[in-house]
Amino acid sequence: MGNFRWGIIGLGLIGGSIARRLAQQGIPVLGADQDPATQSEARASGVFEALLDPPALVAAADGVILATPVGAIEEWIASLPWRPGQLVLDTGSTKRRVVAAMARLPEGVCAVGGHPMAGKERSGFPASDPELFLGKPFILVPTPRTTPEAAARAEELVTVLGARPIWMDAEIHDRRVAWVSHLPYVVAMALMAAAEATGDPALWEIAASGFRDATRVAASDLRMMGPVVRSNADEICAALEVLGQILARWRDDLCASPPMLPPEWEHLAARRRALRFPD
Amino acid sequence: MGNFRWGIIGLGLIGGSIARRLAQQGIPVLGADQDPATQSEARASGVFEALLDPPALVAAADGVILATPVGAIEEWIASLPWRPGQLVLDTGSTKRRVVAAMARLPEGVCAVGGHPMAGKERSGFPASDPELFLGKPFILVPTPRTTPEAAARAEELVTVLGARPIWMDAEIHDRRVAWVSHLPYVVAMALMAAAEATGDPALWEIAASGFRDATRVAASDLRMMGPVVRSNADEICAALEVLGQILARWRDDLCASPPMLPPEWEHLAARRRALRFPD
Repeated sequence: MGNFRWGIIGLGLIGGSIARRLAQQGIPVLGADQDPATQSEARASGVFEALLDPPALVAAADGVILATPVGAIEEWIASLPWRPGQLVLDTGSTKRRVVAAMARLPEGVCAVGGHPMAGKERSGFPASDPELFLGKPFILVPTPRTTPEAAARAEELVTVLGARPIWMDAEIHDRRVAWVSHLPYVVAMALMAAAEATGDPALWEIAASGFRDATRVAASDLRMMGPVVRSNADEICAALEVLGQILARWRDDLCASPPMLPPEWEHLAARRRALRFPD
Repeated sequence: MGNFRWGIIGLGLIGGSIARRLAQQGIPVLGADQDPATQSEARASGVFEALLDPPALVAAADGVILATPVGAIEEWIASLPWRPGQLVLDTGSTKRRVVAAMARLPEGVCAVGGHPMAGKERSGFPASDPELFLGKPFILVPTPRTTPEAAARAEELVTVLGARPIWMDAEIHDRRVAWVSHLPYVVAMALMAAAEATGDPALWEIAASGFRDATRVAASDLRMMGPVVRSNADEICAALEVLGQILARWRDDLCASPPMLPPEWEHLAARRRALRFPD
C-alpha cells in the first residue's frame, strides 16, 4: 500500500479486526478509541503504530476508517478536521444516512461507504480477529465524494482483509440488509419475548441448539444494534409487514382442522439446503 | 444393563446415535429400518448385533426404542406384536399422540415416552454420533403403561447416553417444545419466505452468519418436521398468536416518527446473553 497510512477510529470487534489484519500483513496502522479500557487493550496488543485522539489521528492518517456505532459515525464525519485529499471509509451497518453525511464533507475530501458482512455475537477489541473477514462480502457504497482513486484504495483495503468487495448503492444496501440482517434480529428478539411471555422458567432447561441458533443475534450489544435499527426503521417496517402476512397465512393453515402444512414449505426447505455461507 | 437387550426401530440420526453409544459402551443392540440404503449403512457400521425386520426385533428385544418420524411411531405402537413385560420407548418430538397410542397397548406391555433434546440439520444414519446426547436434556414422559421398573430402565438408558433425564407430562412437554422448537422452526421458514418474496437474488450474496443461524432449522427434513408440526399444531398456533402480537406492537414502535426501540429489548438482550446451552 506504498506510503499510504491508515488510521482507525473505534477499536471494537470490526475496527480491531481490521487493525489486526493490517498489522499481520506488515502495514502500519494508527488507532483511536474513546474508551479507556479499550485504549489499554489496544496499546497492550502491540498492533498499533500509535494510539492518538481522533483529531490527531485525522491529522496523521491518509485514510481514516470510522468503525464506531452508526450514530457516532455520522457525528465524526460532521465534526473532525478533515483535509483535502484524505480518504474516509466507514464500516456502519446502514448506509443511507452515512452517505448523506459524507456528501456534506468539504470539497476535496474523498469518502466511500463500507459494510463488512461479518460479525460475532461477542464484541469489543478482545473479540477482534485478523481472519474475521476472510471470504466474506465487504459491501462498498459510492458517495458524491467517491473519486476513482478513492474507490480503488477502498477495494485495495478490502482485498488486504481477505474479503470480497461488492459495490452497491446505499438505498439498495439498506433494503437488502433489512431482509437478511435486521428482520432476523427483530425476530430473534421476538422469539425471546414470546418464550418469556409464557412465564415458564422450565422452558430454558429444554431449549436446545435450534433455539440457541435462532436467537443468537438477540445477544448483540444494543449500543450497536439500536442505532442500526433506528437508522433503517422504514425498511425494517416494510419487511415486518411482509413477514406478518406470511405468518398470518401460515397460522390459518396450521389452525385448520385437520392442520395443513403451508404448501411452500417443501420449496423453502430445499432452498435453504441449497444456500452456501462463507463460514 | 444385565441381560436386558435393546432393539431400535428407525436408524436415522437419533436411532443411529443411540445405537452407536450403546455399542461404544459394550452393550449389544438390535436394529431395524425399512430403508434398504440405511440397512446397508447400518450393517457395514458393525454397530449392531443383528439387523432384523420390526416384528422379529420385537420378538427378540426386551426393550424397543421407536426412533422413526412421529406418525410412524404411532403406527408401530398400534401394529407390532408386543409381549407382556416388554418395554417400549420412543424418541418422537411431540408426545400427546404417542402417549395416547401407548395407553392402548395390551395390558402388561410397559411404555415410556421420550424426547432427546438433541439434533442436527443433517439426518440419517451417516450423520449419527455416539456423543450426540452428551450433556443434553432427554425428556421422559409417563404413560398409563409406565411401571416403576419401566421408568428406572428408561432413566438408565438416558444415563448411558450421557444425557440428563427430565420427567414431564405429555401436555406440558408439547406446550414447551412449541415455544422453544416449533415456533423457531416456523419463523425460520418465514424468514426464508420473506427473503424469497423480495425476488432479489442478490440477497443471498450478502446473507451472513446472522441469517445462516436464524434459518438453520429451515433446512430440516420435512418428512421428519411435517408430522411433528401437524401433531402439535394447536400449541404452535397459540404460540404464533402471541408472536404475532409482539411483532405487531414492535412494528408500531419502529414505524413511529421518530422510530422508537421497543422498551423491553434491553431486558431481552441481557436475558439472551445469560442463557447457557449444552453445546
